[in-house]
Amino acid sequence: MARQKATQSIQEFPLIRQLQRRHERKDPSIITGIGDDAAVVSFTATDWVVLTTDLLAEGIHFDLTTASLSSIGYKAAMANLSDVAAMGASPRFLLTSVAIPNSLRTADILALYKGFMSACRQYKVQLIGGDTSASQHGLFLSVTLLGTTERKKVLLREGARVGDSLYVTGTLGDSLAGLQLLSNAHEHGTGTARLPHADRKFLINRHLRPTARVREGQWLNQIGIVTSAIDVSDGLSGDLRHICNTSKVGAEIDISRLPLSPACRTYATSTNQDPSVLALAGGEDYELLFTVPETHRTRLERTAHQRNFSVTRIGHICAASFGIYCRLRNGRKKPLPVSSYEHFRTAN
Amino acid sequence: MARQKATQSIQEFPLIRQLQRRHERKDPSIITGIGDDAAVVSFTATDWVVLTTDLLAEGIHFDLTTASLSSIGYKAAMANLSDVAAMGASPRFLLTSVAIPNSLRTADILALYKGFMSACRQYKVQLIGGDTSASQHGLFLSVTLLGTTERKKVLLREGARVGDSLYVTGTLGDSLAGLQLLSNAHEHGTGTARLPHADRKFLINRHLRPTARVREGQWLNQIGIVTSAIDVSDGLSGDLRHICNTSKVGAEIDISRLPLSPACRTYATSTNQDPSVLALAGGEDYELLFTVPETHRTRLERTAHQRNFSVTRIGHICAASFGIYCRLRNGRKKPLPVSSYEHFRTAN
Repeated sequence: MARQKATQSIQEFPLIRQLQRRHERKDPSIITGIGDDAAVVSFTATDWVVLTTDLLAEGIHFDLTTASLSSIGYKAAMANLSDVAAMGASPRFLLTSVAIPNSLRTADILALYKGFMSACRQYKVQLIGGDTSASQHGLFLSVTLLGTTERKKVLLREGARVGDSLYVTGTLGDSLAGLQLLSNAHEHGTGTARLPHADRKFLINRHLRPTARVREGQWLNQIGIVTSAIDVSDGLSGDLRHICNTSKVGAEIDISRLPLSPACRTYATSTNQDPSVLALAGGEDYELLFTVPETHRTRLERTAHQRNFSVTRIGHICAASFGIYCRLRNGRKKPLPVSSYEHFRTAN
Repeated sequence: MARQKATQSIQEFPLIRQLQRRHERKDPSIITGIGDDAAVVSFTATDWVVLTTDLLAEGIHFDLTTASLSSIGYKAAMANLSDVAAMGASPRFLLTSVAIPNSLRTADILALYKGFMSACRQYKVQLIGGDTSASQHGLFLSVTLLGTTERKKVLLREGARVGDSLYVTGTLGDSLAGLQLLSNAHEHGTGTARLPHADRKFLINRHLRPTARVREGQWLNQIGIVTSAIDVSDGLSGDLRHICNTSKVGAEIDISRLPLSPACRTYATSTNQDPSVLALAGGEDYELLFTVPETHRTRLERTAHQRNFSVTRIGHICAASFGIYCRLRNGRKKPLPVSSYEHFRTAN
């Protein structure tokens, strides 16, 4: 959510993208450059290399008065791990650049690095370098991750075809619910006091300690039937739009099929919210959204079951001319709102 | 120079390094982690991969009132290219993260990216991705470069041995002279008005548009007789210290042998400065400093001549107990001053 806001406020970005594309020569070693979750390059006989970088700025992406340094470090690394997961690759090596304001103490910096490393350890990723500097104003982080994948084996945003089924791993909306619990931002109900402790803990943990779906991404890459994939970092609505734009298709999602955790349902009830709004609008769930041809649905669902991976079919791909719609519980269709949580609340 | 200052002002850095080292497990795929010009990792049968990242913060590393966006972008990319040159590797792919304050206009951002690309183009390096964000305060850049080298062929800071000759490519001090010309920082003489236009242009160009010694680094890597190498980014004095600390040796350099450009000599004369002070203290020359066993001196100098590379023997490696000294023109020895330009002016 925060990342979307930041992007939208900078008018120069389309220009930069244009400029970058212009300078991205037709080099055969670049498989995918700017525009996917990560860049993919080829320079060895056996592997392709996946590279992704994320920049986090204080006051834009995080607020030191509400977020701990440890969770900022953890989430910065996890955002990159999720990008590599969405390519179906194995994350390997992390580099961190940190500009540190005078206001931070030694313990803060150690907490930040412990956050980086706590995320890396889960995936046996090595922190191999980086740069540190003073900052006159605010904390800035830039995290770069290198992953590898077998040659010609990679999941891209492009490739979704009309008729493909649209799937998502895990559950959606938990991270936004956790954020609302942390920030007491939700004014609809007064019921969160009655929310079971385990549910509260689960949702906050999903926000502060999300899990990148690295194993799931590698599995989707290996089975060879996935036509497109992305991680849900900006929110289902925004990320589905990326797949549709890149693949030049439309989509219809079925609101009643959105996978929701019991904790998210309980939270939504206790705060008088529609949980599907949380699922559509919430970012940072870091689940994988992907497409599979109709003919391979059974195979996908069977092997998911064997591996004990949760995947849910939430809709299908349509022609670009159809647009991007959601089918409501009453059977009516509505265009999928573009971005913010407020937008969803009024539109649904 | 600015980079040194930034590093010294943050007390946490040794702690971060400790923490990073502790978490850098004994993974056989990490050839060199934190502590060299770049990290070196091994994950393919044929190549080693070299990764380096540099962070630049407004008000710490550059000042938008005196530096153009184009030269900031150029120098950010060149600092990374020079790190890869110092490893003897081939630079391949660049990623850029940029946090952009509202005060910058579209033209400024385009100039910054043109700077990145102008540096990359010289080495056929591809800009393959990155991240952009708003910034509440100041411009921040983080640039990451991936290079490749043949397996087991890499130049490291460690490996210098007692008796090795100490060499440097090109000339030293030009960048600091150029910086002084740009900032009118030098108050010693009034003679720069009489400095030939070509000399002024050469020195300013050496500061604003430095050249990474990529071809030289690859050559030094290939000939297989170089025992250690580093790029001169912090200044000869600081970078020699890095080689000595990592290789656990001392060194003696001969002030009269420091390679100086005619323009730097003329500038020093016109401003009543000792040009060797500029050469010792000045950073951002981006020449390569390296060591070669005494028995291979002839071979090094002969092949350098064949390739038309300028290399100068400026001293030799001593035992660690000897310390790091310079031999002055009068034959006396003095400990090499540690860091800043002011320190050198008073010490020599």
